[in-house]
Amino acid sequence: MAEESDVAAFTTVAAKRLREEEEVGNKGNNYISTVIPGWFSQISLMWPGEAHSLKVEKILFQQKSKYQDVMVFQSSTYGKVLILDGVIQVTERDERAYTEMITHLPLCSIPNPRKVLVIGGGDGGVLREVSRHSSVEEIHICEIDAMVVDVSKQYFPDLSVGFQNPRVTLHIGDGVTYLNAVSEGTYDAIIVDSSDPIGPAKELFEKPFFQSVAKALRPGGVVCTQAESIWLHMHLIENIVANCRQIFKGSINYAWTTVPTYPSGVIGFMLCSTEGPSVDFKHPVNPLDENGSHSKAKGPLKFYNSKIHSAAFCLPSFAKKVINKDQ
Amino acid sequence: MAEESDVAAFTTVAAKRLREEEEVGNKGNNYISTVIPGWFSQISLMWPGEAHSLKVEKILFQQKSKYQDVMVFQSSTYGKVLILDGVIQVTERDERAYTEMITHLPLCSIPNPRKVLVIGGGDGGVLREVSRHSSVEEIHICEIDAMVVDVSKQYFPDLSVGFQNPRVTLHIGDGVTYLNAVSEGTYDAIIVDSSDPIGPAKELFEKPFFQSVAKALRPGGVVCTQAESIWLHMHLIENIVANCRQIFKGSINYAWTTVPTYPSGVIGFMLCSTEGPSVDFKHPVNPLDENGSHSKAKGPLKFYNSKIHSAAFCLPSFAKKVINKDQ
Repeated sequence: MAEESDVAAFTTVAAKRLREEEEVGNKGNNYISTVIPGWFSQISLMWPGEAHSLKVEKILFQQKSKYQDVMVFQSSTYGKVLILDGVIQVTERDERAYTEMITHLPLCSIPNPRKVLVIGGGDGGVLREVSRHSSVEEIHICEIDAMVVDVSKQYFPDLSVGFQNPRVTLHIGDGVTYLNAVSEGTYDAIIVDSSDPIGPAKELFEKPFFQSVAKALRPGGVVCTQAESIWLHMHLIENIVANCRQIFKGSINYAWTTVPTYPSGVIGFMLCSTEGPSVDFKHPVNPLDENGSHSKAKGPLKFYNSKIHSAAFCLPSFAKKVINKDQ
Repeated sequence: MAEESDVAAFTTVAAKRLREEEEVGNKGNNYISTVIPGWFSQISLMWPGEAHSLKVEKILFQQKSKYQDVMVFQSSTYGKVLILDGVIQVTERDERAYTEMITHLPLCSIPNPRKVLVIGGGDGGVLREVSRHSSVEEIHICEIDAMVVDVSKQYFPDLSVGFQNPRVTLHIGDGVTYLNAVSEGTYDAIIVDSSDPIGPAKELFEKPFFQSVAKALRPGGVVCTQAESIWLHMHLIENIVANCRQIFKGSINYAWTTVPTYPSGVIGFMLCSTEGPSVDFKHPVNPLDENGSHSKAKGPLKFYNSKIHSAAFCLPSFAKKVINKDQ
């Protein structure tokens, strides 16, 4: 574990080094050095020419796992922050905007979800949200990187509380392999809480993966997958939408939410259903009472409500033109 | 005008200097030096502990006006950028998310707006949007800083095109003074396109100003004012809402939109109407056809549409709790 004194060493900035990293596409392990001294900066070829920085109070953890660089730091104004391969995954201050939306957009759109699979999501935040749904009997999670789970259990109790639910079964392994071994029609809902398509999550944005998802879902089952930013990745989104149109024979929708610490301040979700009972994602049939019994155990919802559910599907014209062009 | 070679001098970062600026609240003229070399960073006590940075290709303009520091640079991925007192006001890439929303949220909510006042908005972008409305006969604008208008005319043709409309009358002066001289009930709509409440726009967030706005509006007239970020400024917003509830006897609403280059990635709007014909901001009565005649002259809308109009009023639970608490 890194000590506080590492902050200074960590953040000794040299302009030269930044330029070198830009030239090599920032693929090395030096993300954290490319900052205003004492600050962490997100710099990536996925969002060239812009950077978001958080002030670091103390680095709490930094190791290289089998799959990626894992870091946790205490920020000065966003609580604790989890970084994978130099990209912010979770901050304590704004995680609810992501975890509540990626979970309740799919689960509130179908009646009585019982069996739910989470792919990725090793911090546990999505599990916490899934377990608000009393109809859910089994929650399976397949996370590739055990270190993410361990780090969350150590530093993010409000997220990793999700693992404590007795309905949860954790499997450490590759999501694609896991899905291929699943019997056809097993799940009511699959939530893909992945990192960006550079690194270990790459395959989770590709066609064969979506085919496996569709197979693992029951007729009229739903998937919600992290689908990047309308401001930054329209080509990527266009590609995901095209793949999903071929594979999912129910409905195909794109929704988005605001997350300040994600690049461009927004993140989107691809929501699809398989052939079977029709799913109208824009009009949730399974509302989660904001002050219901789930609130007693897990605290009230901070972000999600039925109105923002429907609103999330309203796209700016520039995005609608691309995403809904075949409709 | 600054030359390209100034970029290097401008952006010579020293950790010491950053810390000094933080200590003095970044009120000096050194905003631009607090960056990764070659990048512009937004650092302010209005959003402590975080910074958004854009890569600078070339500084095009930098002067101190009577009121504020004015800078224009060519960024590597967001087009040209206008900075006032170290804060991003406009980038060519994402301005439509702001200008279209701050304009059409109020103007599409009332039938046949004829007389519109813009306070601030010296870049002209809001004027361009107002002039899409064929019912509008007169557009008055009161901008305090002539340098902002001049700089926009020189560097932002897509924004300053708004000044070319023959319906527009420009007044350079203080918005508060201007409003106080206006006859009661003059305007159908007032749009307050201001910078943050630190600097020359301070009074535009205070109660006497809102009283003057209410007086200058006709019965059932509407105001839309820039109202900061739900992620960063809930106390400020709470205060604005409380003031507006006392002053505006029609409806009181808060809406928001995504703007990647604004701190936290979102910006909000306070929308109020005066006593008189009722205004339901959430259900626009005066839709702007996305491909209508206005598009031929001004290009199609890039962001606004009737669905995103209504969606903009749906708030995350944490914000709804504070903003709608008296309802």
